[in-house]
Amino acid sequence: MKVAVMGYGTIGSGVVEVLDINRDSIARRAGMPLEVKYVLDLRDFPGDPIENKVVHDYKTIVKDPEVGIVVETMGGVDPAYTFVKEMLCAGKHVTTSNKALVAEKGAELIALAKEKQVNFMFEASVGGGIPIIRPLNSCLTADEIEEITGIVNGTTNYMLTKMTEEGLEFDDVLKDAQARGYAEKDPTADIEGYDACRKIAILTSLVCGQQVDFEDIYTEGITKITAADIRYADALGRRIKLLAQSRKVKDGYVAMVAPFLLPENHPLYSVNDVFNAIFVHGNVLGDAMFYGSGAGKLPTASAVVADIVEIAKHMDTNIAVEWSSQKLQLVDSAGMEHRFFVRAHANRDEIAQIFSAVTYTAEAEPGEIGFVTERMSEADYAAKAAELGTVVGMIRMAD
Amino acid sequence: MKVAVMGYGTIGSGVVEVLDINRDSIARRAGMPLEVKYVLDLRDFPGDPIENKVVHDYKTIVKDPEVGIVVETMGGVDPAYTFVKEMLCAGKHVTTSNKALVAEKGAELIALAKEKQVNFMFEASVGGGIPIIRPLNSCLTADEIEEITGIVNGTTNYMLTKMTEEGLEFDDVLKDAQARGYAEKDPTADIEGYDACRKIAILTSLVCGQQVDFEDIYTEGITKITAADIRYADALGRRIKLLAQSRKVKDGYVAMVAPFLLPENHPLYSVNDVFNAIFVHGNVLGDAMFYGSGAGKLPTASAVVADIVEIAKHMDTNIAVEWSSQKLQLVDSAGMEHRFFVRAHANRDEIAQIFSAVTYTAEAEPGEIGFVTERMSEADYAAKAAELGTVVGMIRMAD
Repeated sequence: MKVAVMGYGTIGSGVVEVLDINRDSIARRAGMPLEVKYVLDLRDFPGDPIENKVVHDYKTIVKDPEVGIVVETMGGVDPAYTFVKEMLCAGKHVTTSNKALVAEKGAELIALAKEKQVNFMFEASVGGGIPIIRPLNSCLTADEIEEITGIVNGTTNYMLTKMTEEGLEFDDVLKDAQARGYAEKDPTADIEGYDACRKIAILTSLVCGQQVDFEDIYTEGITKITAADIRYADALGRRIKLLAQSRKVKDGYVAMVAPFLLPENHPLYSVNDVFNAIFVHGNVLGDAMFYGSGAGKLPTASAVVADIVEIAKHMDTNIAVEWSSQKLQLVDSAGMEHRFFVRAHANRDEIAQIFSAVTYTAEAEPGEIGFVTERMSEADYAAKAAELGTVVGMIRMAD
Repeated sequence: MKVAVMGYGTIGSGVVEVLDINRDSIARRAGMPLEVKYVLDLRDFPGDPIENKVVHDYKTIVKDPEVGIVVETMGGVDPAYTFVKEMLCAGKHVTTSNKALVAEKGAELIALAKEKQVNFMFEASVGGGIPIIRPLNSCLTADEIEEITGIVNGTTNYMLTKMTEEGLEFDDVLKDAQARGYAEKDPTADIEGYDACRKIAILTSLVCGQQVDFEDIYTEGITKITAADIRYADALGRRIKLLAQSRKVKDGYVAMVAPFLLPENHPLYSVNDVFNAIFVHGNVLGDAMFYGSGAGKLPTASAVVADIVEIAKHMDTNIAVEWSSQKLQLVDSAGMEHRFFVRAHANRDEIAQIFSAVTYTAEAEPGEIGFVTERMSEADYAAKAAELGTVVGMIRMAD
């Protein structure tokens, strides 16, 4: 079976590498040898083993009937969307690691693949090497999934871990992460939570079987987290993690991306550095968690290649994926209830008048006071915080 | 689609319950409604909703062409083996939660299912509700799995957690576990490690694609663990867990079930109570872990029902499982290397003479001395321990 790889960046070149490293066992499991015939990229790669496989026009791949499986590792919605659509229309199976493409066009591409009796797979789009898409689609099918909570962005988890362990400020840790290649030159997508938002949109779509638009998900990044917040977290015996969460509620599903304060007994408390983990609660399964390398060249490529093997085992069958284009209107996150950790320039009287019962933190930065509210809705909290008027920071408590 | 359930014990009745609780979503995902037509059991269940579905002769199921999927939750190798074989021969798909059956007859039943173009699935046989069989078979296929280490027995993990938290002795904790229904009246299979041994045999067979006989795996249970061992573990900053492990080594695979002392940074350190977790290291994926409810009626039934859904989606296709009947000769575990924590009635001179460099523990029970050896093979340790002659306890260190 001939394979084409579109995009020879970190993940694309990782896919070529993994197919080479484990050539024999992959061929055995796939039931056939797999050979990369084309690498699509704008650049040339003189001296690279794939030097002679590089093509610049995706139509070369579309038109070659020998290519049965296409890997999309270009990133971004355009032109990946156009290319993938044409590949599926030409009867080729596609696997992608591209969460932007999957979050925005997943439902449409799944439907198109079904129509053409091929497969569109995207295991690597969430959680890097961690198997989570296929487990949701083929293992947790006896359950109503009532909650998914994930640490799904390695960059921010690395940064928060570093801030926690070394007491550093956000900007210093960001520079360190960029120097190590964990954060991009423009780190916006990671640190503002946009990446995590797309991933929880994908997971929620799979859980409810409908299209969840990532634009509808309340998203807060980690840019406001400071070394002082870490000191408060310490005093509370907690750690700050960027969580991407969706929950089944009475009237549907509610989702959010935001930093949370996790207690020590929280299943995601010990997930550090660039690792990712996804916690799932099913109504009959109870709690489960999937943990592993959430990013990185080879782990992510491992998930893409596992898709290739699965496709090779299903060349003539479309594996059903429950994700229709019918849009799911999320329940307003203003109704989500938490306790809130708050920092304010206020005195205890002012705070007690507005928030009634609160617990003050042992830690207090100069000129401010830290406290944890009772459980209340996002909307109630926002109203009270506005009334108090002197809030300088807020982080939600994860129970 | 009509389903038959063989064995109406804890898990069998759980399967009926889960099919009822999530009837609609299961039918949607399976692409068809699923209805239990028969329950095979020696007993009758007057007053139970399945009262009128009970049959006592498995031939009734074999002969009914309406039944396409059979659930085996009887436990034990016989007569489950005979029943399952006849079901497969009659062209019926089978899912089982029975680790004894799978460990002993898995390869044969997988081959038979392939021959008959049906499926033989066993997700619930390891890790209860935790998806691990299907992830190994269809998600981690790009990797050479170099290590699997699991806490795969909920009973012993509950007991060790309780001993750790409350300082109790083995016998008292066993009584407590029996009173709570976590341990059986005859707890041998759990506490001697036989259950964990069958599970690691299954996982290792899937990883290497050949038959691993559980009888070949060195197995040590937790019956020798005492409250004093817990005190030593505490002093070492470690916790004792019963690990089931297999590793890829130069000449093949080596496997072992035994209590280990885990450091705080070990991925399985925080897996407590009846929870299970399976750690996997792949040569390209790196580290991954699957965590969840390792036992219990509904979690285990959730895995069985997920198999039913998967079967319903593949009524006409045999999903390839790489597990041939060709026996894999395990590498002798005498060559496995660890550090060893040792308790002995000896003095430091005697110990130093035989073991050279050791680290003494801060803790010391009356009349004895505790120490940790350098890294050495099982065989070397055994020889030195015999030479010392006064060893009263040994637990392996998990790095």
